[in-house]
Amino acid sequence: MENLENSTDCKETASPLNNSGSLLNNTDSRPDGRAMGFVLVHAGAGYHSESKAKEYKHVCKRACQKAVDRLRAGGMALEAVTAALIELEDSPFTNAGTGSNLNLSGEIECDASIMDGKSLNYGAVGALSGIKNPVLVARRLLSETQKGKLSAGRIPPCFLVGKGAEQWAISHGIPACPTEKMTTKFSLSGYKRNKRKMELAEQVEMKRKRQSCEHENDFGCLEPVRDLMVEGEENNSACLDTVGAVVVDREGNVAAAVSSGGLAMKHPGRVGQAAHYGCGCWAENARDISLYSTAVSTSGSGEHLIRTMLARECSTAMQAENTHQALLEAMQNKFISSPFLAGEDCVLGGVIVLRCCTCGEAQRSEDIQAVLVEFLWSHTTESMCVGYMSAQDSKARSPSLRHTHARLQRTVFSLGSASCGSRPSLLPVSKRFDEVAVLRVAVVGVFLFVRPFWGGRRR
Amino acid sequence: MENLENSTDCKETASPLNNSGSLLNNTDSRPDGRAMGFVLVHAGAGYHSESKAKEYKHVCKRACQKAVDRLRAGGMALEAVTAALIELEDSPFTNAGTGSNLNLSGEIECDASIMDGKSLNYGAVGALSGIKNPVLVARRLLSETQKGKLSAGRIPPCFLVGKGAEQWAISHGIPACPTEKMTTKFSLSGYKRNKRKMELAEQVEMKRKRQSCEHENDFGCLEPVRDLMVEGEENNSACLDTVGAVVVDREGNVAAAVSSGGLAMKHPGRVGQAAHYGCGCWAENARDISLYSTAVSTSGSGEHLIRTMLARECSTAMQAENTHQALLEAMQNKFISSPFLAGEDCVLGGVIVLRCCTCGEAQRSEDIQAVLVEFLWSHTTESMCVGYMSAQDSKARSPSLRHTHARLQRTVFSLGSASCGSRPSLLPVSKRFDEVAVLRVAVVGVFLFVRPFWGGRRR
Repeated sequence: MENLENSTDCKETASPLNNSGSLLNNTDSRPDGRAMGFVLVHAGAGYHSESKAKEYKHVCKRACQKAVDRLRAGGMALEAVTAALIELEDSPFTNAGTGSNLNLSGEIECDASIMDGKSLNYGAVGALSGIKNPVLVARRLLSETQKGKLSAGRIPPCFLVGKGAEQWAISHGIPACPTEKMTTKFSLSGYKRNKRKMELAEQVEMKRKRQSCEHENDFGCLEPVRDLMVEGEENNSACLDTVGAVVVDREGNVAAAVSSGGLAMKHPGRVGQAAHYGCGCWAENARDISLYSTAVSTSGSGEHLIRTMLARECSTAMQAENTHQALLEAMQNKFISSPFLAGEDCVLGGVIVLRCCTCGEAQRSEDIQAVLVEFLWSHTTESMCVGYMSAQDSKARSPSLRHTHARLQRTVFSLGSASCGSRPSLLPVSKRFDEVAVLRVAVVGVFLFVRPFWGGRRR
Repeated sequence: MENLENSTDCKETASPLNNSGSLLNNTDSRPDGRAMGFVLVHAGAGYHSESKAKEYKHVCKRACQKAVDRLRAGGMALEAVTAALIELEDSPFTNAGTGSNLNLSGEIECDASIMDGKSLNYGAVGALSGIKNPVLVARRLLSETQKGKLSAGRIPPCFLVGKGAEQWAISHGIPACPTEKMTTKFSLSGYKRNKRKMELAEQVEMKRKRQSCEHENDFGCLEPVRDLMVEGEENNSACLDTVGAVVVDREGNVAAAVSSGGLAMKHPGRVGQAAHYGCGCWAENARDISLYSTAVSTSGSGEHLIRTMLARECSTAMQAENTHQALLEAMQNKFISSPFLAGEDCVLGGVIVLRCCTCGEAQRSEDIQAVLVEFLWSHTTESMCVGYMSAQDSKARSPSLRHTHARLQRTVFSLGSASCGSRPSLLPVSKRFDEVAVLRVAVVGVFLFVRPFWGGRRR
């Protein structure tokens, strides 16, 4: 793959209808047996401290590598996305699996879900303790669903929570893991710090109420306690929410997954968007009414992402021709300004999005099928850590975690000589989004792979 | 209220744009202080045994009465819908609260959710044991969300599950209730019968496998065990899934709620559509982009209702002008033939739907505002038990649980002399739905209330 290149004309190139001609004049159609596919991962939208930026980027790259290893070994999207998630969950730096935020009782309770764009099957777990990789349970639930009914015609579950989910996982061969092994020094120190903050906040609140009775409107002497959700605090892990991945495989199937330890100091039993259908992840292959296959994974404040069903909304938006405009509008209208979040003063979230389709010109060829992949991410938070890699890359990439406000960076890159990009630039965002200070950035990339097609009829 | 009247021209009357003129020529604009509002409830789509039909209808009527009592006492939609749900949960005949289906371990685990169309706030509990009225916990979660952030800026949860949900409920003053008190003779005998069936099914399956090894394709001697989900069995409670209600209050606000004990013999920790955002219930007041306020509550196979997000889909469909056609199309395209349920041989579900808007002609009046309410239900199951009542009715109504195939009964009725209906008839459904044998019936009613409006500007 060529280096990342910013492009002035990527608006045009991002549309498969506009750029496919040049792509398929290319003679380097990947030979039979060459691995194909693409993965995009995230390690959360929130605040990633500068001192640990290297670690976050590193884990994203490793997750991409794991997914690509699966794709190269002939694995499909669902396997690759699971492999990426396991790597992300195993990192002590992410808020998923090992190193998850602790809840009010000092315990780990994880949410995770996975969706297969081909079968549209789905599996999810919520408030799950004692399992090292929650995504494995979600994946297994999905697989069991695909096997059909249980004995006596019972419908297999697609969503399990709590102790029942843990028991089901163990009975299906997924090993138990004591919470202590999943707790890190980092998560434990975060818990203690947050507990002190909460106690202080409650003391301040009580004093405020007492003062309010004694001297109305005289709060001057009370220092407000900083919110657990506040951005920009070096040692604050509360905003490091959720990891996820989206994958397209050699057949053009998409899959998406998400996993989270949830908000720091959440109430036991609280389930966030990572376990919620349509909210944490979404994957849907192209079919009659939808031209593009889409996959989405979200991160941020679970309650906001649930109430806006952000994953599904972004997936729907991706059927529009102009991907980056569609994503910005979805983030603005369906999230930041959503009537479902009216009154919320701080709407925190981020998404990674992938969409793909068979290239127009490629459809004329009988034995070659080209798949155009576009990928984007957008967040309202201080930072968002992502990584991406194609099955033909030698290594994964993870761009800068922070971006300037009110600028839209658009990146076009190409695979081998199947180029669809041109020269670098930075495009100012439209006035509409200039005014939205909280919507940080949307990065768009276009990636193409050409795959041999053995069959009289194209899919 | 006049008696229910079937109408040949109700297609026109159902549209607020077509019938409001005649409505507001009426001089009986309800006087100040007269109670207004409407409730529609269901006691599940599934198989309701003939021998207990009376009980099911009776509990629906009682639930309507409770909701109307709240409306008459000045309560809003959210309070009324909660009152209806408590009555439905308390009945030993319904699969919600007391009398819920038992899970594989012989325990009760309930799901419930509630949504407020005005604030768009939402509360839900999943796999909750030890609380008599799960809807009360969902309602309290919703109320707490409306109060704003918790100490140290933490976002309050909108969805709690399992033990954590139970602890939260108790800490918020909702009393605990031992499972034994919620278990009925009926649910216990159902559990024992289902357990035997499962064991038998598993034995048959093992024998089948053994025979398959010994004599391939020789299964003739094995009698298949009847599915737990099968319809038409007199003593089978497995299909009696979920109760719910939709309400519109005197201000035109809508609310919806749903509660379920879940599938019989479900795995512990399994959460169904009743706790799932967008799947179990939906309520959304009219706003800029939507002319109608809508409220929906669903029932049926939780996994199917989750994967199709049926509540939200039906709500969206209700923005079309022709309600009954829109609901039939939604049930057909978004549920029965949904790509999300491809491969499922038995798609079981039902919905109750309510939509309302300010009547066209009423908008010309400075001091009177008329609200037109349309209500419908549709199900793919053998039966669905519903009840409905306006705040000015002397008693609730609960029509026949079963309906003939391929006929669409449409009912128009009016409040007092503010009539918008005409003579009875039965309309054959369009050919399209003639072919859908599983989609039983959709009943539509139109109801109008005229309310005084004190204010210079209408809402």
